[in-house]
Amino acid sequence: MESNSGPLSQHQKAAAFLALHKPGNGILILPNAWDVASARVFAISGFPAIGTTSSGVAIAHGYPDGQKISRDEMIAAVGAIARGVSAPVSADVEGGYGRSPEAAGETARAALAAGAVGINLEDGDHDSPDALLDLSLQVERIKAAREAGRAMGVHLVINARTDIFLLRNANDRTDIAVRRANAYREAGADCLFPIGARDADTIASLAREIAGPINILAMPGVPPIPELRRLGVARLSVGGGPMRATLGLVKRAAEELLGPGTYSSFLENTLSSSDMKKILERLA
Amino acid sequence: MESNSGPLSQHQKAAAFLALHKPGNGILILPNAWDVASARVFAISGFPAIGTTSSGVAIAHGYPDGQKISRDEMIAAVGAIARGVSAPVSADVEGGYGRSPEAAGETARAALAAGAVGINLEDGDHDSPDALLDLSLQVERIKAAREAGRAMGVHLVINARTDIFLLRNANDRTDIAVRRANAYREAGADCLFPIGARDADTIASLAREIAGPINILAMPGVPPIPELRRLGVARLSVGGGPMRATLGLVKRAAEELLGPGTYSSFLENTLSSSDMKKILERLA
Repeated sequence: MESNSGPLSQHQKAAAFLALHKPGNGILILPNAWDVASARVFAISGFPAIGTTSSGVAIAHGYPDGQKISRDEMIAAVGAIARGVSAPVSADVEGGYGRSPEAAGETARAALAAGAVGINLEDGDHDSPDALLDLSLQVERIKAAREAGRAMGVHLVINARTDIFLLRNANDRTDIAVRRANAYREAGADCLFPIGARDADTIASLAREIAGPINILAMPGVPPIPELRRLGVARLSVGGGPMRATLGLVKRAAEELLGPGTYSSFLENTLSSSDMKKILERLA
Repeated sequence: MESNSGPLSQHQKAAAFLALHKPGNGILILPNAWDVASARVFAISGFPAIGTTSSGVAIAHGYPDGQKISRDEMIAAVGAIARGVSAPVSADVEGGYGRSPEAAGETARAALAAGAVGINLEDGDHDSPDALLDLSLQVERIKAAREAGRAMGVHLVINARTDIFLLRNANDRTDIAVRRANAYREAGADCLFPIGARDADTIASLAREIAGPINILAMPGVPPIPELRRLGVARLSVGGGPMRATLGLVKRAAEELLGPGTYSSFLENTLSSSDMKKILERLA
């Protein structure tokens, strides 16, 4: 019998995270962290779950986006974040660090072993820009990730991403997104992620025609969260946006130091002492 | 014969960094990075050298400040930053991860091996809050760090920090800071860092009575850089301020997402695409 108090087991965390995707539970707002500090700020702000951002983790470690960072380094960052917060953590593991179903399964296992209870898995072809992996291959990759969780006794929450809206030359993007998402859903994905879908009409079509919860990425042109909720979106994530915004702040601090030589960009509007204490308490 | 083009050797970088502390070269503005991305933003902004912030590195990795992070993890972060920028990098290595001169020497060697050309070394007693290490011990620690650089053929730029202004119960702080700084200078330190000195009168006394370049930390109440220059300050660093400010931005993003459900805190005033390109180019 499991205790009602104390930290949740990984199995319980995964179930709690999955439940946040159920219709009627409102929209899940999933912020994406790139290090333990950002994850802790999101955690003390009250989000029920935390995602990671692969682009943010990569650039923080000195790599451009797109699987230039190794699986090991990415998983180490995921593990540090998962250990740093008590909320369920979903790992952005790009294309799974390899194109085979075996690679996707291995990456899913590694994410679970690091303490995550969910993953994002992309269908973009990392070897061929502006192309997607064959639908049948991506279906096998999703099944392999599902099986990896099953073997470890955890329902890994799989957010299957389709990159069709990111391709430069594509027609019928919405139709393709729907077809792919429904195939991924049938293969066992828990949430479907048509990254790059922006306008309300497209999002409404996707929400209506995809037979499962959908994840929308906050980017310029995307409707605010209350409207996304009305459109039937199950989950909103922020990707690398907040990380990139912090770099904008660093740039403003640099310009202020090298210009007038004052400090307000980084001494004002900083994290409050009480929030800093909350973050440090958890880490101590 | 060394080439005039191409990347500087570590020996050359150390000499270039040391030269930035010479009187008549103006004030050195040293920004402190906590990961490769922040270091790259500072680098593209035009700073001639980059420092690291131990508190920023620690919290990004999930540790509170004060040597809770291991030497190995801190040095790994320093190495990633040093590899990520071509400018000289000075490593904030707290108290040197151990109280003995041998520990300080080993940490100095590790920082140099990781690619740094300078270190900060604190005289606060990590085993006894509100106390400083014996002056004679700290002198031996500085000599050990100097010797570590000599053995590796590099003039390690040592910024010897005195923590007297951080102690809760202390009198004659300025006198003690001057006495300690001058002893550290005699032991071979290149720059003296009375952290916590804020007001213009105190800073002017320190600049006048310390027989070497002094480093002031930007914190609330510290005069702007043009005034510090007039007061005779050789170097201004920012410590964990910018990192903490980025956490304030993350908190505002969290509040906006959970409140109105909009995205302007992280989609507006973000790093420009051209700056992002500059950062990624170096990393690619």
